[in-house]
Order: sequence, then structure tokens, then C-alpha cells
Amino acid sequence: MSLLVVGSVALDSVETPFGARENVLGGSATYFSAAASLLTRVAVVGVVGDDFPLGDLDFLRKRGVDLEGLEKVAGRTFRWKGKYGFDLNTAQTLDTQLNVFEHFQPRLGAAARKAERIFLGNIDPDLQMRVLDQAERPRLVCADTMNFWISGKRASLLELLPRVDLLMVNDSEVRQLAGESSVIKAARAVQKLGVKNVVVKRGEYGALLVGPDQTFFAPAFPLGEVIDPTGAGDSFAGGFLGLLDRLNADDPSSLRQATVMGATIASFTVEQFSLDRLRDLSLQEVRSRFDAFRQLTHFESLPDHVA
Amino acid sequence: MSLLVVGSVALDSVETPFGARENVLGGSATYFSAAASLLTRVAVVGVVGDDFPLGDLDFLRKRGVDLEGLEKVAGRTFRWKGKYGFDLNTAQTLDTQLNVFEHFQPRLGAAARKAERIFLGNIDPDLQMRVLDQAERPRLVCADTMNFWISGKRASLLELLPRVDLLMVNDSEVRQLAGESSVIKAARAVQKLGVKNVVVKRGEYGALLVGPDQTFFAPAFPLGEVIDPTGAGDSFAGGFLGLLDRLNADDPSSLRQATVMGATIASFTVEQFSLDRLRDLSLQEVRSRFDAFRQLTHFESLPDHVA
Repeated sequence: MSLLVVGSVALDSVETPFGARENVLGGSATYFSAAASLLTRVAVVGVVGDDFPLGDLDFLRKRGVDLEGLEKVAGRTFRWKGKYGFDLNTAQTLDTQLNVFEHFQPRLGAAARKAERIFLGNIDPDLQMRVLDQAERPRLVCADTMNFWISGKRASLLELLPRVDLLMVNDSEVRQLAGESSVIKAARAVQKLGVKNVVVKRGEYGALLVGPDQTFFAPAFPLGEVIDPTGAGDSFAGGFLGLLDRLNADDPSSLRQATVMGATIASFTVEQFSLDRLRDLSLQEVRSRFDAFRQLTHFESLPDHVA
Repeated sequence: MSLLVVGSVALDSVETPFGARENVLGGSATYFSAAASLLTRVAVVGVVGDDFPLGDLDFLRKRGVDLEGLEKVAGRTFRWKGKYGFDLNTAQTLDTQLNVFEHFQPRLGAAARKAERIFLGNIDPDLQMRVLDQAERPRLVCADTMNFWISGKRASLLELLPRVDLLMVNDSEVRQLAGESSVIKAARAVQKLGVKNVVVKRGEYGALLVGPDQTFFAPAFPLGEVIDPTGAGDSFAGGFLGLLDRLNADDPSSLRQATVMGATIASFTVEQFSLDRLRDLSLQEVRSRFDAFRQLTHFESLPDHVA
């Protein structure tokens, strides 16, 4: 079992109706590995600038995250600044500074090349392709993408998709990619572009998995309080792939459990700012919320006499 | 087993992005009884004007719906005119003509008074109370309400709630009633007003059941096409109470199945305008979509070694 994530390690400045944080730990690879490392061993490939407080990643190292592939180069770290209103589903981006991420060229070391499962965080599809070119024999490739690449790099993205086993996007992205307003129709249209499975993340409205032989829906865990939605999607992906790697499986039933595991860990992420909740989260807490999820959604078949 | 609905029988004019209909069959009691009659025997108490085409209700009579309590009085039938945009979740009301409904005084006949289960459609809470005053020994009382009564008749509503076993409202209504933005917190706050169970209908985002000892979530059935959402909520209620009456039960597991049954029948309702889809719907079709719902949401517990 081995899991690789290629994506951003960032410093975020976030404002929500419940407070604000400046230059706190963020980035897709960070959230992903914090979530996945609760379940399996993860390696990170990414880049930070010389201003990055590497000590902030100590909690990941302690959980066995392999940070060998995190390059440190001269310059400033990738920064994102965003704001959420009371509709916590969509962030308003106030500022994006790519900084050292602008010239990021993912390089996979000997171990990373042998990764069995790969998560391609939301980066240029040409770079995502370059990662796959270096990978030797991944059993499962999962990719994220966004509106910017769907419109600006569509040709590259369409070339990438047949090499992807699982595309993980949000509602508006799947609609944009398919040119279809119904989410379920859009997911099926995306399958025709060569992706086996499509997972549509719908924020507080849950997640939909559309596979070759099944459709599965997991609600978001009903929380009393959401403090900061940043990183929900990437920690969803981390929980999802972390569980598949731990189970060493990709059968339909495992994909369902992985969807719920993604939703479970994401539900912790949003309870606090930045990675604050993920930092000390235990697998025991995660298991118990996973069980609560089952309680939340389970129901019995109809008795035969109702016919 | 016996189920009573008190509510509107109306003529609707509806426009959605997929077409328009003028003066077609509508009303809460109509949708409710069309749904519930697939599962059990329903009696309707309501009022129509002398312009109402009673023949339009023949399909209900054929399904055994008792329309004895549907008064026909001089004047025009209640009319509602509304419009949906591409966000099919919320209707824009263009015109409401109460007409004969304005002076509606629900009168329960001898059989109706003995009903074991009662659905109080969305009418003035004082009238809802008057219905309960006439009922002899209902085992389950379920009520709907709306923003208009929550703000305009709050005192009456608060007096009604302790006599209600199950309040069935949408997101914005539960938020308004509780003065609380989190749906789950709002539902729990409403329980404190004396209602045992709260069902929050969230349109395309499913339905949440919050009971004394359980929380349950059912997604909306993922449909390729929604043509007209009118009546989804009332046919949800009809499926819900229809199943409870058929099972003659109100234990936690039956309430879960009832929530799914509500969502199942509502998912048929929205596939066509007015009651067109409900008219010829069979229990067999309903059962098979209920089973598909289970396929859609079921997942296994985590294996013990994930710990």
C-alpha cells in the first residue's frame, strides 16, 4: 500500500462569518495528507518557498507522512486569500499569489514513482500528465480540477481524463465540464470522456459517486457548526484515497465506504480554521463518526406485504 | 388504519423552464391523497368552488380516496399561480386567490373524526387546531406550515405545536421558526417547542428527520430531469403518512422508511406537471424506486482492522 499526492502546500488567509486567520497552513496536498495519514502512509510532492515555516508540518511527519518530495526553493510560498459569507458553500477568492508554485515541475523520487495510488491535486492538467508519465504502475489515479483549467486547458484535460480512474470535482465543475445542468447526467457524460468513476462533491449537500455499475450518495454529516470550509474537498479526497489504500481495494463496496470516509473526515475539517481540527484528530474519532454516518442513513427494506 | 388530510384542493397555473400549464389540478390535499392512496385509505376534508371540475378527481376515487369531506360551495376554487426558474428549489408566487378557501371551516364527519393519523396541510394554525378539536383519538398528528403563519400567527402556531407529533417543513421555515440558521440546530430547537419529530424537506437536497432518539437523512432521488416541483412537499407527506398508516407503526425504523417513501413518491411527482405522474403511478413502480434508493445509500461498516 502506498499513496502519493501531488499538489499545493500553501499559506492561506481566510475570513468566515466566525472569524479570520492570516497566513495559516493550507494547500491541497497538506489537507489531503493530513486526512489520508490517519489511514495509510502518504508521500507528498510539492514546493514551498524559503519563507515557509516547515515546523508547521511536524504533525504530518509524526503521522508518517513522507515529505521528501516537498521541495524548498528560493522565493515566497503559494498564498491564497479568500472569504466565505453565510452561504459557506462557495469561497470568494480575494487574492491568489502563485509565487514558487508558478514554476513548479513535479519530480517523483524512486519511491513515489512506485506509488500504487495517486491523487493529482488541482494543478495544470499538463503537470498532472507529467506526474503520470513518471509513475510506474499506479493501480488507481484520482484527479481534481477546476473551472480555470476546464475552460483554459480543455484539450489537455480531455487528454488526461482517459488516464484517470476517478475524477473528483464539485457540482459546478462537473456541469461545466459536461455542458449539462443535471449533476447526474453531467457525471455520466464525464464518464464518456474516459473516466471510470466520477465523484461530485456538493459541500453541505453531500457527495455523489457515479461508477460504471453503481450510483451512490453520501450526505454531508449534519453539523451544528461549520467554522471554515477551506480544505473540505481535499480532506475528502484524502479520506477517500486513504481508505482505499488501507483496504487495498477498489471494488464497488469499498468505493462506497471511501465516499463516506471522505465525507467523515471533511466534516471534521470544517469544524475549525485551517488544519486545526485535523492536527489532533484520531482514527478512533473518525471511526465513531463513520458509524454515526451509517446510523444517519441506514434504513430497512420494505416488508413484502407493502405491494 | 385510517388517514385523514385537511388541506387545499386547488387550480394551479405553473410555469417552469420546461413548459407551462394553466388551471391544472393542484392543492395540498390533492397531492397528499394521490400519494397516500397508493399505500392506504385516505379521507379528504377541504373545499372547492362551483367552477371545479370534479371529474378531475375520478382517479382518486378509483384508488379508494374518500371525498365525502370535500365540500362544494358557491364561488371560485382556490387558485395559485407560480413560476420556477432554473433553480427549481423555490417557487416565485405570482398570484394567490383564496376564493372559497378564505372562509373554509374544516368539518369532520363521523368517520373522519375517528382517523388514526391526520395530516394538517398548510392552513391557518387556528383552523389546524379546530381540526384537532374534532378528532377523537389520533395516534399521529402531522402538520405543515409556512412563513406566512410563522410570522403572522406565531402565538397560535406555538399553541398548536405541543399537539403535533411530527412537524413537516422546509429549510427556511424551520430556520424561521427556530430563529437559528443551522438546519439541524433549528430542528432540535423546534423539538423544544413540544413537537416530537421534525422532518425538514430540502428539495433536491433531500430530507432530514430529527426524532427524540434518532437523526436520519434521506437524499432526494437523483433524477435526470425535474419538470415541475409543485406538490413535491405534499406528496412527500402523503407517501410518509401513507406508509406509516399502512405499517400501522411509528417506531424509529418505520419513521425512517416513511421518510424514504416520502422522498420516493415526491421524486415521481416532479417528473411531470401537476398530478400527471401520480395519476397512473403504481405501487410496484414505487417499490422498485424505494429499493433503488436503498441501493443508492447503503454502505457497509468499516472492517475491524481499520482502527
